[in-house]
Amino acid sequence: MTVAQHVDALRCGRLDLAGLGETMHAAMTRLYPICRSITGNGVRSTLDVLAESLDIERRSVPSGARAFDWTVADEWNVRDAYIADRQGRRVVDFQRHNLHLMSYSVPVRATMTLSELRPHLHTLPDRPDWIPYRTTYYNRDWGFCLSENQLRSMDEGPYDVVVDTTIEPGELTYGELVLPGDSTDEVMISAHVCHPSLANDNLSGITVAAQLARTLRAMGSRRYTYRFLFAPGTIGSIAWLSRNADVLPRLRHGLVLTGLGGPGALVYKRSRRGERTIDRAAAHVVGRRGGEIRGYSPYGYDERQFNAIGFDLPFGRLSRTPHGEYPEYHTSADDLSFVKPAEVAESYLAVLEIVDVLENEERYENLSPFGEPQLGKRGIYPTTGGKQATDAVMAMLWVLAYSDGETSVLDIATVADVDFAGLRAAADTLEGAGLLAPAQ
Amino acid sequence: MTVAQHVDALRCGRLDLAGLGETMHAAMTRLYPICRSITGNGVRSTLDVLAESLDIERRSVPSGARAFDWTVADEWNVRDAYIADRQGRRVVDFQRHNLHLMSYSVPVRATMTLSELRPHLHTLPDRPDWIPYRTTYYNRDWGFCLSENQLRSMDEGPYDVVVDTTIEPGELTYGELVLPGDSTDEVMISAHVCHPSLANDNLSGITVAAQLARTLRAMGSRRYTYRFLFAPGTIGSIAWLSRNADVLPRLRHGLVLTGLGGPGALVYKRSRRGERTIDRAAAHVVGRRGGEIRGYSPYGYDERQFNAIGFDLPFGRLSRTPHGEYPEYHTSADDLSFVKPAEVAESYLAVLEIVDVLENEERYENLSPFGEPQLGKRGIYPTTGGKQATDAVMAMLWVLAYSDGETSVLDIATVADVDFAGLRAAADTLEGAGLLAPAQ
Amino acid sequence: MTVAQHVDALRCGRLDLAGLGETMHAAMTRLYPICRSITGNGVRSTLDVLAESLDIERRSVPSGARAFDWTVADEWNVRDAYIADRQGRRVVDFQRHNLHLMSYSVPVRATMTLSELRPHLHTLPDRPDWIPYRTTYYNRDWGFCLSENQLRSMDEGPYDVVVDTTIEPGELTYGELVLPGDSTDEVMISAHVCHPSLANDNLSGITVAAQLARTLRAMGSRRYTYRFLFAPGTIGSIAWLSRNADVLPRLRHGLVLTGLGGPGALVYKRSRRGERTIDRAAAHVVGRRGGEIRGYSPYGYDERQFNAIGFDLPFGRLSRTPHGEYPEYHTSADDLSFVKPAEVAESYLAVLEIVDVLENEERYENLSPFGEPQLGKRGIYPTTGGKQATDAVMAMLWVLAYSDGETSVLDIATVADVDFAGLRAAADTLEGAGLLAPAQ
Repeated sequence: MTVAQHVDALRCGRLDLAGLGETMHAAMTRLYPICRSITGNGVRSTLDVLAESLDIERRSVPSGARAFDWTVADEWNVRDAYIADRQGRRVVDFQRHNLHLMSYSVPVRATMTLSELRPHLHTLPDRPDWIPYRTTYYNRDWGFCLSENQLRSMDEGPYDVVVDTTIEPGELTYGELVLPGDSTDEVMISAHVCHPSLANDNLSGITVAAQLARTLRAMGSRRYTYRFLFAPGTIGSIAWLSRNADVLPRLRHGLVLTGLGGPGALVYKRSRRGERTIDRAAAHVVGRRGGEIRGYSPYGYDERQFNAIGFDLPFGRLSRTPHGEYPEYHTSADDLSFVKPAEVAESYLAVLEIVDVLENEERYENLSPFGEPQLGKRGIYPTTGGKQATDAVMAMLWVLAYSDGETSVLDIATVADVDFAGLRAAADTLEGAGLLAPAQ
Repeated sequence: MTVAQHVDALRCGRLDLAGLGETMHAAMTRLYPICRSITGNGVRSTLDVLAESLDIERRSVPSGARAFDWTVADEWNVRDAYIADRQGRRVVDFQRHNLHLMSYSVPVRATMTLSELRPHLHTLPDRPDWIPYRTTYYNRDWGFCLSENQLRSMDEGPYDVVVDTTIEPGELTYGELVLPGDSTDEVMISAHVCHPSLANDNLSGITVAAQLARTLRAMGSRRYTYRFLFAPGTIGSIAWLSRNADVLPRLRHGLVLTGLGGPGALVYKRSRRGERTIDRAAAHVVGRRGGEIRGYSPYGYDERQFNAIGFDLPFGRLSRTPHGEYPEYHTSADDLSFVKPAEVAESYLAVLEIVDVLENEERYENLSPFGEPQLGKRGIYPTTGGKQATDAVMAMLWVLAYSDGETSVLDIATVADVDFAGLRAAADTLEGAGLLAPAQ
Repeated sequence: MTVAQHVDALRCGRLDLAGLGETMHAAMTRLYPICRSITGNGVRSTLDVLAESLDIERRSVPSGARAFDWTVADEWNVRDAYIADRQGRRVVDFQRHNLHLMSYSVPVRATMTLSELRPHLHTLPDRPDWIPYRTTYYNRDWGFCLSENQLRSMDEGPYDVVVDTTIEPGELTYGELVLPGDSTDEVMISAHVCHPSLANDNLSGITVAAQLARTLRAMGSRRYTYRFLFAPGTIGSIAWLSRNADVLPRLRHGLVLTGLGGPGALVYKRSRRGERTIDRAAAHVVGRRGGEIRGYSPYGYDERQFNAIGFDLPFGRLSRTPHGEYPEYHTSADDLSFVKPAEVAESYLAVLEIVDVLENEERYENLSPFGEPQLGKRGIYPTTGGKQATDAVMAMLWVLAYSDGETSVLDIATVADVDFAGLRAAADTLEGAGLLAPAQ
């Protein structure tokens, strides 16, 4: 099977897209409880789960290693963390939700009144039931995150405060998977793996990337080599970049996946240059799905590292409603009920359609360029005239009208605002009829 | 008289545009009953009527001749065709409306029940009073088109079915008229002549083209040579293209005329490249008339042949509401009451305005470029200051501000969104005042 | 203090912008009663007032002198002008409002009936209380402007008609002020000084220009040399252009100021070429203030002379609602109550922001281009993660993401649609942190 056939089968219902959405949601459910951070056991456990179905290579970068302007932090792990009242009842408990502990909190063991504790407590007064997500990676500090309602129910104390964590030399871990293709030119798919129990951000991106890897692995042939990176945000991608100078010249197209299970239409964020092939491919796919295309901005996820001036790589980002634009963002409300199987499934199909464009983008030459060729005598045109053209006929006419050896199928899809997959199929038909040939 | 003077006279009412609309409608009335197809007597009769007022050359291409990917079909003619009941009453009768017979129906003489006939009957269930238009040029078949109401009133029969047609070697016929100009560079106007009793599609195009030819013939001088082609759709233009390789390099601008008498605003469809001079001229004229400018699409009329990659000619298309976008399209409701004298007249004026742009497009040099020249001392500026500028003064200022020898009048009209004809008149005034000269 | 610091202080309220608006309104009040025209005592008196706080050089061009296509007119001065009834009561009196006399009216001393007078009387029937503004610079004539109500109250007369004016050889006068900068490259600010008692057109422009000159004079250093021109419209700027051929090659950016105190949002009119640096700077500033950006048009104020093909200088124009688009335009209703201190103040700040862009536009090089530099370890990034970025952080990220040595701060402000001043401040911070350097 080819990517094109796989896309067509999912689109016409021969393959069960809804069922795939349920499968991906189940995969997210399994990863949800793990406490991830930019280093530590959580990332390794996550990669272990992925490795059950994919030959992911686990890479380690030691604490203290330099990566351009950055230094890899000491490794952080949590044994336990809580705030308990005089009766020993845990009023805030890391065991109940890993968001309760600010990521990278240093060890603490103290008895404190609420007034003393207060500067270390983070809540969302406007969303009194939700726990916020906070981190302190590069500033030695500690803190608890709790719901506003929890805070309101606390009296002055005193409380036993325990943060049983370790921050010590170890490693930063990331996972990498390479699926070789006909060409050594690469398409890279990246998803960050550093967020704890947050479903949309980024179990959705991890899960869609893993599903894509499984699908591409099963394809008979691939034009491109595909590289999947599951790394902690920022420091993870920078560490990868610092150790893969030889790979960078082969990176033709890149896509960061995140926030693919939440509500709202698809949103594609362009690369910094804005008109790379990945941008044009994704803008086509997302545009036709009623999604939104945005310009580059230097804030967001790892696309900002890949696009940095020194690398200048053609990476875009696909999400649904982006970070910070939905209230559940970076709170406990970004949970398994927030991400829907149907949304994840559509996101996955969109990624696959983008890959279809990359795999099948081609320039053709019309071999019968003097006027329109007589399609009827080749049996590929309706015999009764006087009615309007069908989509399939229109797709053939578009391909013939513009295939001058310079204009590609994606160019035509963009100019005509017609489906790439339909043009790709029309080109196959025309090539079969001897009317079209790949440009020399 | 020049084209410019003719346009100005029609626009200001010195010439009777409404009367011209009535005249053109009368011309359409005369052509309406003729049964045209892509070959046969109907085309020849149509060209005979046009030849009464224009020296149209009639060209023949024999059946079986090759034209690029196509072969000229055998000639089709109709003596009679009907479906009669047992009492000999014709329930469907070609003599009453030539749409009743599917074009290129092969001969039939049979007795059939309604059930047997049914696969050969075409109706429009949603428009029960209208007869559809159907053809079977390249697939040997036969059929009758009738209204849904006619069909409903038929019992099981049996019926006498007679299609008394001939399909045999003959010729494809088209008409051509060339009006020489100061230059051998050509403007080509094309209208298809293969549709039977359908008024908007394309008696309107034929009639506007013929009227334009009569007007241009009467002009004292013409910058361009004008070539008018009255040919059957698709195969007619492809046949012309195959026999005029020497003409093609001289074709500077082309316009396909069709659907100019129906409702809706003017619609200009760009050439494939989209920014040819004809595109810019027509976009200006049609835009200022409140019409719509559309990109190229490979579906439609003969513009698709002229624009084919192998020819790449700068042909646009002018219509009102295009094919397939009005319910009357390709039905008996596209009749003489559907096309209005006022619409045909406006369409004609728009074509003439486009020709005015082509004839008078020029680059000028401002001979007084250091600040604004003092128009007042030349008697071409209002003497009392403090009020706003008139259109005529503004047109002079636009021409002076941009006439750097590179920027043309059409460029200025486009940038300024002011009427080309007004700028053209202003340029005349300024040239008369010694402030402007054609660029070297 | 620098321009940047001055802008920041006005924007954040450390300097009193509202008070400045009151001061500028007071300056307009003082200039309002003076009867200006394109020559004569009114212009000189106006320049005298400006010279009290600015070292304006007064330049004279003798009547009869040639300036390209123009000849400097004789000088016009008014002693008195009125229409008096038989009782000697002045029914129309120049002493009461200088708009009552058409500018450049020739001397008259006559007794006339209303019927005889009527062709010389100008009113606005639709605005019966307002006096229109009319001129007859280059056509020897005379006239009175009065309100429609005044006219209606006049009986048949006869009337004593006195126009006690002189039109005789003298001079055309304009004022010029040059503030040298680090570079001899110049920014030119121009405001016309030929309109009599009309406040928005153009005491507002004169006053904002004068205020800008006082501000820039007080700055410690200036990148550019600033040249201010206070000249009569059209003939004044043409005369200046004809006498400053040596200055023209040094003019890098120019701005015409007019109509800055009336209602409506800011309106920037682009230079003829439309994409000069002044256009991009002003479009940024005005766009972010909710104002409107318009294309060039050859009608308006002195921008049409500077932009004329022979000079082709990069001059835009800043106003609020432009000439002719508000009913008070060129009438007695354009008075001191029509212009508001708050509007003048905002206009002034916008001009200053444009100057800030010109002064601080720069190309930088990101010195840490491999991924995002770690801002946190330099103390310029928030220590607690998980929240959205602040404007100040975003500005730093934008500057880092695009500072490739080719892309300027204004380029980034335009692409990102973020405040230039914010990016300029971010660039300072980053340069201080050793992460950025001016491009070589």
